Amino acid sequence: MGINIAVIGGSVCSKKFYKIARDTGRLIAQQGWTLVCGGGFGVMEAACKGAKEKGGFTVGILPGYDCREANDFLDVNIPTGLGCARNVLVVRSSEAIIAIDGQYGTLSEIAFAFNEGKPIVGIDSWQIKGLIMVDSAEEAVKKTKYFLERKK
Amino acid sequence: MGINIAVIGGSVCSKKFYKIARDTGRLIAQQGWTLVCGGGFGVMEAACKGAKEKGGFTVGILPGYDCREANDFLDVNIPTGLGCARNVLVVRSSEAIIAIDGQYGTLSEIAFAFNEGKPIVGIDSWQIKGLIMVDSAEEAVKKTKYFLERKK
Amino acid sequence: MGINIAVIGGSVCSKKFYKIARDTGRLIAQQGWTLVCGGGFGVMEAACKGAKEKGGFTVGILPGYDCREANDFLDVNIPTGLGCARNVLVVRSSEAIIAIDGQYGTLSEIAFAFNEGKPIVGIDSWQIKGLIMVDSAEEAVKKTKYFLERKK
Amino acid sequence: MGINIAVIGGSVCSKKFYKIARDTGRLIAQQGWTLVCGGGFGVMEAACKGAKEKGGFTVGILPGYDCREANDFLDVNIPTGLGCARNVLVVRSSEAIIAIDGQYGTLSEIAFAFNEGKPIVGIDSWQIKGLIMVDSAEEAVKKTKYFLERKK
Repeated sequence: MGINIAVIGGSVCSKKFYKIARDTGRLIAQQGWTLVCGGGFGVMEAACKGAKEKGGFTVGILPGYDCREANDFLDVNIPTGLGCARNVLVVRSSEAIIAIDGQYGTLSEIAFAFNEGKPIVGIDSWQIKGLIMVDSAEEAVKKTKYFLERKK
Repeated sequence: MGINIAVIGGSVCSKKFYKIARDTGRLIAQQGWTLVCGGGFGVMEAACKGAKEKGGFTVGILPGYDCREANDFLDVNIPTGLGCARNVLVVRSSEAIIAIDGQYGTLSEIAFAFNEGKPIVGIDSWQIKGLIMVDSAEEAVKKTKYFLERKK
Repeated sequence: MGINIAVIGGSVCSKKFYKIARDTGRLIAQQGWTLVCGGGFGVMEAACKGAKEKGGFTVGILPGYDCREANDFLDVNIPTGLGCARNVLVVRSSEAIIAIDGQYGTLSEIAFAFNEGKPIVGIDSWQIKGLIMVDSAEEAVKKTKYFLERKK
Repeated sequence: MGINIAVIGGSVCSKKFYKIARDTGRLIAQQGWTLVCGGGFGVMEAACKGAKEKGGFTVGILPGYDCREANDFLDVNIPTGLGCARNVLVVRSSEAIIAIDGQYGTLSEIAFAFNEGKPIVGIDSWQIKGLIMVDSAEEAVKKTKYFLERKK
C-alpha cells in the first residue's frame, strides 16, 4: 500500500507553475509515493504528467459525477459528485500536502490541512499563518519526506 | 421560508469578538433572517445568543454525530458526522456569510464562500484577497443587506 | 432545542400516502418535535404541510445548491449540493425515522438508519429485514415515542 | 484511464461468499478493470485478494480518517472520514456495481446505485425490486460487460 501525497493548486496556471508542478510530480513518483490530486487541469495536470513520466501512480478525486473534468494523466479517477466539497477528500486521503500557487479552491484545501492536522508545504501559494513556503519542487519533496519520517 | 445568513468564526474567541458576534446575531434576528452557523461555542454561540435575545431563529450544522458540541442557543441542530467537512454545508446552506475573527475552520469557510460564489464580509478576520472587511456588526449586516438586494 | 424526527418517502406519492404523511406531520408537531425531511414534494411535502397546520417546525435538507426543489411548508432550508448523498444527513440529523412508502432514495435512508443504529418505523414501505411496519400515522408516532423514551 | 467496477458486500462473510468475491475480483482484474470497494474485510478483502492474484488494480474508499480498517490487498487507499456516508462515493466512483451478499451498508449502496442510475447486479444479495440476481462470479462479470457495452 502506497503513501498518498497530495499536490494542490489551480486548474489554470502559468508556465512557471506548470513546470514546478511537473517537477514535483516527478519527484513524488521517484519517492514511490502515490500522487493524489483533484484530477483537473493546470497544476493538477502538470503534477500527474510529471509523475507518469517517472513511472509513478496518480489518483484524481473529481468534483463531478463523471470523468469530464479529468486530466489525461490519471491512473485512477474517483468521481464524487460533491463539487468543491471534494477538496476535503483530497486532504483527508493524503498524508501530506504540497500547495503550488492556487486560487480559492487551493486555499480551502490549505485551511482543511491545518484543520485536520495534515502536514503541508507551499510553493508561492497563499500566505497563510503557519504555512511553510519553500522555493522549489526539490525542497517541497524534501520537506514532505521530513514530515513523513517525523510521523513514524 | 426564511433567508439563511451564516456567521462563521472560532469556537474560542476574545470578549471583544464575543460582543461583536452577539451584536451581529441580534441584527440578523432583527432583519428576520435565519442565523446559520457551525453550532459550536465562541463566535457561533455569541451570534446565536444575540439572535435569540431578539426573537430570531438559529440553526447549527454540527460536526459530530450528536449534539455534544452544540451551544445552548440553537433552535435546530443538524448533526452531520462529517467533522470539519460540515464547513462546506454552512456555506452552501446560506445566502451570505459574515466572518468574525476565526481560525483555520473559518478560513476554509471563507475559501468555500469564494469558491461557490457566495457573498461574504469579514470583521477582523483572515486577510484574504477579495474579502471585504468592515469595522462593526452594523456595517456587516448593512453590507449583507446590500448583497441580498443586488441578488434579486 | 427540539428533538428532530425524520419523515422519509418518495417525492411522488398516491393520495393515500399523502394523507398518511400529512397525519404523521400533524402528530409530530403535536409532540413538539421538529420535522426533518429531504425538503421535496410527495411524502415530504405532505408531512411538512401537516406539521405546519399544527404549529410545528419543519426543516428540509435539500439535494441541490438552492431552494428550487423545496416544498412550500419548510421553515428552514438546508441546500447541500450533495445530490442524493444528502440522504445520509437526513438520517444523521434525526433521532428517529418514519418511512412512508418510498422509492430507492427512501431505501437508502432506511439502510443508513440501520447502519447508523437509528430507530426507524415504516408504513407500507420497503420490506426490509428488521424494519418494523405499522398501519397508521398514530402507531408510527407512538412507536417513535417509545424509541425516544427507551433511549433516555 | 481504467474503468472502475465496484464490488460491494459485508465486512464479515461466509467462506462461500469469500470464494465468490475472490473469483469476482480475479475476473475483474482479467478484464483490465479497476476494482473499487469500501476497503474493508470480508467480501471487500476477498475481491481485492482475487484481483491482486491476477495482476489487477484495487482501490479502497475507507470510512475512517486513516487506513486502520483497510484490508491488505489495496493499491490505493482513500480514507474519507465520512463513516458509512462513504458508501455513496463507492457507488459514484464506479461505472457498474456487483453486490455479493451483504448487510445494511450493502443495501445502502444498492439503493444509491438505483438512485444514481448505475448498473448493478447481485449474487445472493438483498432481494430488491429491480436488482438482477445471477448465480456466479462469471455471470456477474458477463452481465457487467453487457452493461458497459450498452453504455457506449
